[in-house]
Amino acid sequence: MPQSKILNTPAIRRMPTYLHKLLKMQAEGRVNVSSTELAEYMDVELIVVRKDIALTGVSGQRRIGYNIDELIRYIKLFLGWEVSATATLIGAGSLGAALLGYDDIVYYGFDIRTVFDADPGKIGTVLRGKMVYDVAELERRLQGNLPEIAVLCVPKEAAQGILDRLAALGIRYFWSFANTALKVPEGVVVEREVLAGGLARLGVRRKLDRQARRKAAK
Amino acid sequence: MPQSKILNTPAIRRMPTYLHKLLKMQAEGRVNVSSTELAEYMDVELIVVRKDIALTGVSGQRRIGYNIDELIRYIKLFLGWEVSATATLIGAGSLGAALLGYDDIVYYGFDIRTVFDADPGKIGTVLRGKMVYDVAELERRLQGNLPEIAVLCVPKEAAQGILDRLAALGIRYFWSFANTALKVPEGVVVEREVLAGGLARLGVRRKLDRQARRKAAK
Repeated sequence: MPQSKILNTPAIRRMPTYLHKLLKMQAEGRVNVSSTELAEYMDVELIVVRKDIALTGVSGQRRIGYNIDELIRYIKLFLGWEVSATATLIGAGSLGAALLGYDDIVYYGFDIRTVFDADPGKIGTVLRGKMVYDVAELERRLQGNLPEIAVLCVPKEAAQGILDRLAALGIRYFWSFANTALKVPEGVVVEREVLAGGLARLGVRRKLDRQARRKAAK
Repeated sequence: MPQSKILNTPAIRRMPTYLHKLLKMQAEGRVNVSSTELAEYMDVELIVVRKDIALTGVSGQRRIGYNIDELIRYIKLFLGWEVSATATLIGAGSLGAALLGYDDIVYYGFDIRTVFDADPGKIGTVLRGKMVYDVAELERRLQGNLPEIAVLCVPKEAAQGILDRLAALGIRYFWSFANTALKVPEGVVVEREVLAGGLARLGVRRKLDRQARRKAAK
């Protein structure tokens, strides 16, 4: 599959959910899992599970299914998560705090080492075990110990300025929760998280249900 | 397009981002927008934009593009967002606070009216203008004034119990940030938000970049 196709497949977004479930099964001592069981858990068609898993290079065995240890290893390889990523968090507001407190993030080979904020009321405080530094000191604190990923939990007005400074330092991967499009230099990648995506899907479901009810009432 | 296909299209998750951009253009007094401009903004291929917009039923005009007012109206209709949805938020932790403080949520026809938590330290306090009620009072407070959507920002161990109680009251749409699969009665829909989805995409990009660098070094 060409790179652009791989990146656009919705399968990627499903991988953490498979991984989470498989790790739980592994912890319970399970050895194998069938595609049927995964399809039920994921609430997708069987063929979707088979295609998703084929992407990782694992093939199941008839009547036995997939080996859980192998599948975990290959999903991590597929996602590049076998190499842990260091990260910095910019923005120690409620969303930043939620991400820092997200227990399951450890599964994802993701390690937030530093936290920055611009609010004098937050600078110098400790948020979930991490000291909050002044965003004015970004360069001084990160130079020489550059994280791979920057997580942007800042107001949208501040996001571009912060990104420019971090990209100038050499950070190439950004996970942005700021609800705005960001301009990036060549070679820099922004993954924009749109929280309203789930609301959009709920909206369409509500609408389809309303239409079905109206049709049934006729 | 059949219903299941509509619901599985990644186009739905892109719609709030189009809408956000179009509302901004509308506020700036713009009248038309080209698919090229939208493709650049969304960082997707031109054909993707055209297919996405065709889903809403709007067609563009050669050399003029799409009418912004019309496109906004049709995206809202497509998402069922022309009918505002009432919601209750369960869990007044940092993620719940982030959602309550998410300015742009008003664009999405989404109105969080009540907030509940189990923590005695939070019950009775005011979070971003909303009183936090005791989750023990869910039934008493919501009966007779049932919201359409429940947002679950509770620990995963608590999520199933809360869902069961709310579903018994008659709530049918759930937006869950609890990192766990939930069992639902017939007719009830859970949209599970997996925050790690963006991290998965970043992981794949990092991996592809590493592979490209290794290849270039040979």
